[in-house]
Amino acid sequence: MISVKEASLRIQKATQEFSVETVSFLESQDRVLKETILADTDFPSFDRVCMDGIAILKKQFDAGKRSFSIEGVQAAGSPQRTLKNAESCLEVMTGAILPNNTDAVIPYELVTIENGNATVNVDQVKALQNIHTKGRDRSRGELLIEKDTLITAAEIGVLATVGKSEVQVIQQPKIVIVSTGDELVEVAEIPLAHQIRRSNVYSLIALLKRLAVKAHTEHLKDDKESLKRQIQFYLETYDVLLFSGAVSKGKFDFLPEVLEELGVEKLFHKVKQRPGKPFWFGQRVALDVSGVENKTTIFAFPGNPVSTYVNCLKYFYPWYQKSLGTKPSKETAVLGVDFSFKPSMTYFLQVKLENKAGVLVAIPQIGNGSGDLTNLVDADAFLELPADKTEFKKGEFYPILRYRTF
Amino acid sequence: MISVKEASLRIQKATQEFSVETVSFLESQDRVLKETILADTDFPSFDRVCMDGIAILKKQFDAGKRSFSIEGVQAAGSPQRTLKNAESCLEVMTGAILPNNTDAVIPYELVTIENGNATVNVDQVKALQNIHTKGRDRSRGELLIEKDTLITAAEIGVLATVGKSEVQVIQQPKIVIVSTGDELVEVAEIPLAHQIRRSNVYSLIALLKRLAVKAHTEHLKDDKESLKRQIQFYLETYDVLLFSGAVSKGKFDFLPEVLEELGVEKLFHKVKQRPGKPFWFGQRVALDVSGVENKTTIFAFPGNPVSTYVNCLKYFYPWYQKSLGTKPSKETAVLGVDFSFKPSMTYFLQVKLENKAGVLVAIPQIGNGSGDLTNLVDADAFLELPADKTEFKKGEFYPILRYRTF
Repeated sequence: MISVKEASLRIQKATQEFSVETVSFLESQDRVLKETILADTDFPSFDRVCMDGIAILKKQFDAGKRSFSIEGVQAAGSPQRTLKNAESCLEVMTGAILPNNTDAVIPYELVTIENGNATVNVDQVKALQNIHTKGRDRSRGELLIEKDTLITAAEIGVLATVGKSEVQVIQQPKIVIVSTGDELVEVAEIPLAHQIRRSNVYSLIALLKRLAVKAHTEHLKDDKESLKRQIQFYLETYDVLLFSGAVSKGKFDFLPEVLEELGVEKLFHKVKQRPGKPFWFGQRVALDVSGVENKTTIFAFPGNPVSTYVNCLKYFYPWYQKSLGTKPSKETAVLGVDFSFKPSMTYFLQVKLENKAGVLVAIPQIGNGSGDLTNLVDADAFLELPADKTEFKKGEFYPILRYRTF
Repeated sequence: MISVKEASLRIQKATQEFSVETVSFLESQDRVLKETILADTDFPSFDRVCMDGIAILKKQFDAGKRSFSIEGVQAAGSPQRTLKNAESCLEVMTGAILPNNTDAVIPYELVTIENGNATVNVDQVKALQNIHTKGRDRSRGELLIEKDTLITAAEIGVLATVGKSEVQVIQQPKIVIVSTGDELVEVAEIPLAHQIRRSNVYSLIALLKRLAVKAHTEHLKDDKESLKRQIQFYLETYDVLLFSGAVSKGKFDFLPEVLEELGVEKLFHKVKQRPGKPFWFGQRVALDVSGVENKTTIFAFPGNPVSTYVNCLKYFYPWYQKSLGTKPSKETAVLGVDFSFKPSMTYFLQVKLENKAGVLVAIPQIGNGSGDLTNLVDADAFLELPADKTEFKKGEFYPILRYRTF
């Protein structure tokens, strides 16, 4: 049985490459950018007025002039005007281009306007005051957004500004989430005494949606032949297969042998961790007709609800993020109370998170083990407690796998 | 001019109530639950085998028996079997109902099976070992998910388990995001020398999408009559109006007067903050034909990109979260370096966040003021520095408005 660290290493070595596609910039939110975004012009692209008021020529003020005849208005969105008489002024609006022959803006708050004249009530005027000068933020051609950036609202605004109405992002892989187990019935059904409803696959769909992935779900019966036939089809159709169940020692846990019979290379089976020990991971590399390598990656999670859930966060998330080219998230939290876990394996402790004075504090939520799905509702994350310790003290910090934000 | 605290108070007093609608449980992710979810049965609903192995009667083991004839297999998903001979055993699979007349499960790892006999290699058997007993996690009727919970992957799994194929959630309000300003052109257009592209409305659409709201966007020309006609229509059509621009002192900043002429009550105009001082907020309460109060809330943000952005996070987010019935997010971070801000107003400092040993550290990202949209890409959040201080020391913690997670 391998360690959590070794399992993570093997998974990180088995990343996939996905294609690039072009989408509308507004649809690119939460996706990973696959081009660099440069400034298409200087920012601002013109000397931009940033207060409503009047624009004057500073040297007139310096020479003692305080009252300026108003020649007109420079509105935002109007072509640039020219101040004709150096001793006059133009009213200017926020967002307007600065008129020719002016170099300072005095805001309305400091101006008295009467009979077409503006009198300024200030002692000093600074050169270029209240003017956002051309190119001050960025120069034309400058890098604005790096390739491999996860696109948020901040990037959406910049994409709009530089006119990228369409952008290149990673294409979403085709993922199928498969449940096995004859005890499972559909959500809308009433289970018999020995049955339960399918729920793990829906938790997985929701966990994948957080990564902006739309996954498809299927259910397979515990019958080796039909399992094999169906999985053969999935291997040919999807980029990634996620399973829940059928990887332990049961008589109907056919999954590991079926996958290997179908040419999937087992990269490991079983990890020194709780919950989720019987996790199976593998990959199939097939050459397509043109000789290009085609990878399919298989995450076969144990069927207990909490096992499936934490394994998805711990293994699928960073694998997917690395495959996309982004950095896997790394967060830590401080243990809020002493905690003890004796077995020599990594323990994923369910915790509630609190932000106290800038510190992320993890409070254990003790549930009833890996079968207790309902306990996930009371927690926000798993705290990853290493295998080489048994006593964990209040104040120590450990990595967290978080599924809820504040 | 009012303080940030006073502005927040007035906004929190002006929340709206939205309708409730029924959606498929899978579509309820990121929405707010408007019913309580109870356990529809005990969890587990039967004594559930949680290891693959054999089920025996403990008192046989206690009486010295170590070898058990195998009567058959209790598979997961099969009706409950009965152990006929108390001295025999049944093979049992994870997820199966525990057979009648058995009360302990011994995993395959500790059993040798030969010629239809299972010999157990253990010194001790505990009552009910490896059995997840009926009702141990939750009892039928127990509260599983509270009303007003924001639904995440954890809740999706529970909804599936209890058979809630449809759930009641808050209906998404109808929101329109309106830009004004004759200097604006569309994203796909090439701006003239005095023009820029529309970008604030797209940042706002993206910020709202983070709250699972789909908003519609419109653009209005700086013409008072057409502005008034269009806004009249928006007031009758939408629940919430977000504006960007036209709230300052400019000659074409018609928005405040137009809104008041249309019967919108101004709740404040201008806040002691940077950026975003000219923020205007109001509400219209109209009676519909059946005498029911109909509220429309108007957030009119200043047109500078960073002003619009931070005001949406600071004011619209908590207003919307309170309107939905959820708790507004409250996070703090520790300042990573000394920082100074002299003016007597709240300052929203752009920061990059780092998680260091469980502590959220905020590193200032100094940009070029509220016009510098591109700087948002380099930051993760705003650190809210209070108005009553001018010196902010490394190690002090302040609230953050976060738009990017790790």
